[in-house]
Amino acid sequence: MRGGFRLLYPPRAVPTLPVLRLGDGLLSTAPSDLDTGDGTLDIATLKELHADHFSRATAIRVLAMDAVQAANSGHPGMPMGMADVATVLFEKHLKFDASAPDWADRDRFILSAGHGSMLLYALLYLTGYEDMTLDELKNFRQWGSKTAGHPEYGHAKGIETTTGPLGQGLANAVGFAIAEESLRARYGKKIVDHFTYVIAGDGCLMEGISQEAIAFAGMQKLSKLIVLWDNNDISIDGKVSLSDTTDQLARFKASGWHVQECDGHDPEDIDRTLTQARASKKPAMIACKTHIGFGSPKKQDTNGAHGSPLGPEEIQVTRDIYGWTSGPFDIPKDILSAWRTIGARGADERKAWDDRLAALSSSRQADFNRVMSGETHKRLSATVRALKKQITDSRPKVATRKSSEMVLEVLNPVLTETIGGSADLTGSNNTKTADLGIFDATNRKGRYIHYGIREHGMAAAMNGMVLHGGVRPYGGTFLTFSDYARGAMRLSALMGAPVTYVMTHDSIGLGEDGPTHQPVEHLAALRAIPNMRVFRPADTVETAEAWELALSSERAPSVLALSRQNLPTVRTEHKTRNLTALGAYVLAESTAKRQAILIATGSEVEIALAARETLEAEGIGTRVVSMPCAELFAEQDEAYRRRVLPAGPVRVAIEAGIRQGWDRWLLDERGRAARAAFVGMDGFGASAPAETLYKEFGITAENVASTVKGLL
Amino acid sequence: MRGGFRLLYPPRAVPTLPVLRLGDGLLSTAPSDLDTGDGTLDIATLKELHADHFSRATAIRVLAMDAVQAANSGHPGMPMGMADVATVLFEKHLKFDASAPDWADRDRFILSAGHGSMLLYALLYLTGYEDMTLDELKNFRQWGSKTAGHPEYGHAKGIETTTGPLGQGLANAVGFAIAEESLRARYGKKIVDHFTYVIAGDGCLMEGISQEAIAFAGMQKLSKLIVLWDNNDISIDGKVSLSDTTDQLARFKASGWHVQECDGHDPEDIDRTLTQARASKKPAMIACKTHIGFGSPKKQDTNGAHGSPLGPEEIQVTRDIYGWTSGPFDIPKDILSAWRTIGARGADERKAWDDRLAALSSSRQADFNRVMSGETHKRLSATVRALKKQITDSRPKVATRKSSEMVLEVLNPVLTETIGGSADLTGSNNTKTADLGIFDATNRKGRYIHYGIREHGMAAAMNGMVLHGGVRPYGGTFLTFSDYARGAMRLSALMGAPVTYVMTHDSIGLGEDGPTHQPVEHLAALRAIPNMRVFRPADTVETAEAWELALSSERAPSVLALSRQNLPTVRTEHKTRNLTALGAYVLAESTAKRQAILIATGSEVEIALAARETLEAEGIGTRVVSMPCAELFAEQDEAYRRRVLPAGPVRVAIEAGIRQGWDRWLLDERGRAARAAFVGMDGFGASAPAETLYKEFGITAENVASTVKGLL
Repeated sequence: MRGGFRLLYPPRAVPTLPVLRLGDGLLSTAPSDLDTGDGTLDIATLKELHADHFSRATAIRVLAMDAVQAANSGHPGMPMGMADVATVLFEKHLKFDASAPDWADRDRFILSAGHGSMLLYALLYLTGYEDMTLDELKNFRQWGSKTAGHPEYGHAKGIETTTGPLGQGLANAVGFAIAEESLRARYGKKIVDHFTYVIAGDGCLMEGISQEAIAFAGMQKLSKLIVLWDNNDISIDGKVSLSDTTDQLARFKASGWHVQECDGHDPEDIDRTLTQARASKKPAMIACKTHIGFGSPKKQDTNGAHGSPLGPEEIQVTRDIYGWTSGPFDIPKDILSAWRTIGARGADERKAWDDRLAALSSSRQADFNRVMSGETHKRLSATVRALKKQITDSRPKVATRKSSEMVLEVLNPVLTETIGGSADLTGSNNTKTADLGIFDATNRKGRYIHYGIREHGMAAAMNGMVLHGGVRPYGGTFLTFSDYARGAMRLSALMGAPVTYVMTHDSIGLGEDGPTHQPVEHLAALRAIPNMRVFRPADTVETAEAWELALSSERAPSVLALSRQNLPTVRTEHKTRNLTALGAYVLAESTAKRQAILIATGSEVEIALAARETLEAEGIGTRVVSMPCAELFAEQDEAYRRRVLPAGPVRVAIEAGIRQGWDRWLLDERGRAARAAFVGMDGFGASAPAETLYKEFGITAENVASTVKGLL
Repeated sequence: MRGGFRLLYPPRAVPTLPVLRLGDGLLSTAPSDLDTGDGTLDIATLKELHADHFSRATAIRVLAMDAVQAANSGHPGMPMGMADVATVLFEKHLKFDASAPDWADRDRFILSAGHGSMLLYALLYLTGYEDMTLDELKNFRQWGSKTAGHPEYGHAKGIETTTGPLGQGLANAVGFAIAEESLRARYGKKIVDHFTYVIAGDGCLMEGISQEAIAFAGMQKLSKLIVLWDNNDISIDGKVSLSDTTDQLARFKASGWHVQECDGHDPEDIDRTLTQARASKKPAMIACKTHIGFGSPKKQDTNGAHGSPLGPEEIQVTRDIYGWTSGPFDIPKDILSAWRTIGARGADERKAWDDRLAALSSSRQADFNRVMSGETHKRLSATVRALKKQITDSRPKVATRKSSEMVLEVLNPVLTETIGGSADLTGSNNTKTADLGIFDATNRKGRYIHYGIREHGMAAAMNGMVLHGGVRPYGGTFLTFSDYARGAMRLSALMGAPVTYVMTHDSIGLGEDGPTHQPVEHLAALRAIPNMRVFRPADTVETAEAWELALSSERAPSVLALSRQNLPTVRTEHKTRNLTALGAYVLAESTAKRQAILIATGSEVEIALAARETLEAEGIGTRVVSMPCAELFAEQDEAYRRRVLPAGPVRVAIEAGIRQGWDRWLLDERGRAARAAFVGMDGFGASAPAETLYKEFGITAENVASTVKGLL
């Protein structure tokens, strides 16, 4: 697949008068290269005043045009518009060393406007990141390349997060900045002291998640967060004014940000505002006035520059206007060399940092390296085991949200990298333990975050915290509000970011708050997300085991679905082994000849056990399988799955949610159906006390027992 | 269940010094009733200056306290805090007639802070809405009552929308205001001319959806939208300043709103600002400074007032402070009478409106009544049939998003109640047809809305438009971004609001944009929502049928999942009947003895047909079932389902999404599994051309054919 690109741009004379044409009716006349129309620098002036800068920025622009043309799809307009800003940022401000992309104290550069991925790929190639080769740029958007349509975390070094769904990068960046503040407080300024820079577009700022991020960052005074807004007045449908007239500077200022404007094509202006932004004690936003598709006579300042190749002819005309004579993907040596120098300019600083790290005590170094690598604390398992032992002795009857708090009370003092929080449901989610302290502008050592009523922003911030490294975030809300956070939760799964979502009030068991607050389809909807582990523990022991798995997960996020209502301890016999890691296991065996298997999760395990009592009393041998994590059970080998769910007996699954997804466990390993049934919900809940709801919706031991008898 | 409440508040002397105590450590000392601490009116002053107002407002407060106590759950603090504002609104501004709750030109009152449901229920009871009886208040939050924990649309008249998930009501209200503007432009000011009032709390304003709503409403200059912000400085976790320091007035102003502040306990101040807000040419926001739990010595101004009963003792002390001597749920006759007069004050205006409606020509009247009732246009079916005939003749090969545009091109001119739009993907969603015109401040007759990059706000606005009545909204985005809109989409389903979601780019078939933009689990996740109809049409004929069903749906929202890539016309024989209404049907019958059934949706139907060709050529009789809507198929009788999916043949389901949910259709009607398989996705997609992806992920006719042969 590699190679074979035949992009031929026929040589042309520089047009004396750039082609002008009307936009699509919504847009005014496209400006020529000699007149940007709004006082921002035009190409002629840029070439005259800032020749070296211009040639470097133009290298980004032509690579973006070329790669999008080669792929015959993509977004050239944004990289062309923001090339000047990015060039100044990388040349004069961003702390990085292309030869050491994992340097823990590098500045983070987040491309929230992820469709402009070629801006990032071009920068990584030009500055010399080893795994971003010219071939990768030529294979932009092709199968197996590192250069996906939108930046994908893990594909190449320098891609700090997966972006594309708008607003996510901006909200991730808040998490990066939190992680930085937290680690700086813990390890000192000599080890942790860096900025997080974000390029955000109009789309990022229109998405609601942006407000959650902005308001939260302002309240937290995250002074090392700097947002560069690509203020180009264009969205896909046309002029931004078609759908938005917000004064963005006033909006950010209202949430406590330092705000500035700059000409996004004037390197001096960009440099000046970046310098001021870095000195600010508040998070800073710079509105960079830019021209989308900068330099393209037909496409500049139009939505036509946004999401399609410019076409070979327009590319050639634009190259001519730039005065760029090299062919596709060909960067002149002097320009590439200048960029490579930029890529290496942080090397000394990085080496000095290496020395400072080496000067720490060996235990501090080891601790720092461990938390940055995400390695699990070695005392995690032992701590969980000790708690399990204690619980099987004391057998508390508590809600699993309370169980979760009990687990966190013993784990948080040991795993000092955890940072907890809640979207304003602290007392309901039971996420705050005694020793955490509140993380805010006056106490960066605090480990508990009041995220406010911002589920989506919380989830995206937690993604950023994980990606930054050094901290292990968990955050709470009601399970039903996973709907609000889903955009970011999907990205946790796609990126393999081991965030822990503490989702309490996990069924109609929450009672009187009613159907808006009662998750019914949410377990199924979350299980549907690839690489998302959904835990629904039945008691404190399973909750402890689920926490152990969540906090030691390397490449998958976890949802802990926890009850509001009290549940008995069902794991009354201590087992050292983490049975939840098996996904499902035999909790109670039949005494009479096995005729039925009941499979249940969470609060319904108690019901299954009660039904088993009834059935066994009538001589119907009944096994109860607890299935705290269907995803992990699916990963077990077939032999184990068959042992837990052998063919033969009737099967009844019980969960206070919808059936979707359960049919899989009602089939045997050969795909043959058992005589089987599901006891759960087939519609929305209602407002009433929990016990009433369970009864009215028929999720009772009596109904389970009679269902079994009906099948036999 | 009704009756039997025994709330006994022991009589007590009025405390000479109200009990003071410290908050939970985060809060300052709770103020006494004599000192609100911030210049807002205290109870003594209120009683002295505004005795009648105070008694009416207090009726709300005591009902809220009593009902929450009786239910032993609920949220008393907000109704107690906002009672003065609501009293002034209902007494002096809100246009309504409690005896005619369906009056089309009534002002709409939206309780976005839905947890304060007792505020609404108390108002409906006090003003005399027939179905809101005192018994309903006594049965607050009980099974079968109309008084659910959060207001549920449809439970009682006067509940304009379901709220509870924060921010939704505010964003619904934007849709109400759009519908009003649109209908006013169509039917004239004499028939349509009303305000939409919203009470929103801090939670509503912190949720990201609020920004989408605010910015959009400001751009649209929705001058008949008035937001009353319950500015009480308290959220569940404590002081709002724990998580937010936004200057909300500045924030709204930045998006073009008229902003004011008032003392939320001073009826004169409330009245003054409401009068000004109504006169504004912009949407208006009034920051009402209030005290949560107003009057409760121990709970006022604390999060303790938010979400729990005050307790009998505290209720009694608070009653004493109010000077309220009646028992639980007992409203003195004079006060109830005053409220009932308020409930009737709009009667004359309503009768005058009835006369004006009657004065319209009979066809205008009939049209207005039809659109307000949501009745389907009588030409819908015939128009769809004519298009289907034409398509089966011409057999275009187009993407179903283009098919959808073709359908809308013929339907929009007929169904003039449609209002289309897109979250800034107009050219990709193909949602705009030639004759719609743009709805904006300069053209309220326009029927196409540029929602901006605001999926959640768009969905919630469409809910509001449906609930208002008179318009039938549809809106587009990419299917993957249903994740962003899910909070509001769930409410469409819960309320039974027949919104149409046009979700294009419905699989890996979108190609190069990569996994962030490729829905994989979204079909399953949307099918998981009860009462949501997910259509995935295979060609233009099925798309037309799906649109017919969506636009005639009375109680269910519809998702149209549409392809980016071109698809052949597979329905090549004209049938008058809407086969999509059956959910699934036999598209191609086996010619040889039937050994296999292939079930597919959307773009994979073409693959199933190609596999059938291969198999039939090898003598393996193969039926192809197209299943454009699994929900509707599930609703058919068993006999039909068995005819379409008879037991015996092997079954292979093909969908470029995950398997979850498909097992149901791989079982026969007795729940026995066929020899069956699924060809689809089991993880995230990738960035590459669509054809490459289908091949790499094995969703090909060859693979389907060999899967069938493997099963035989």
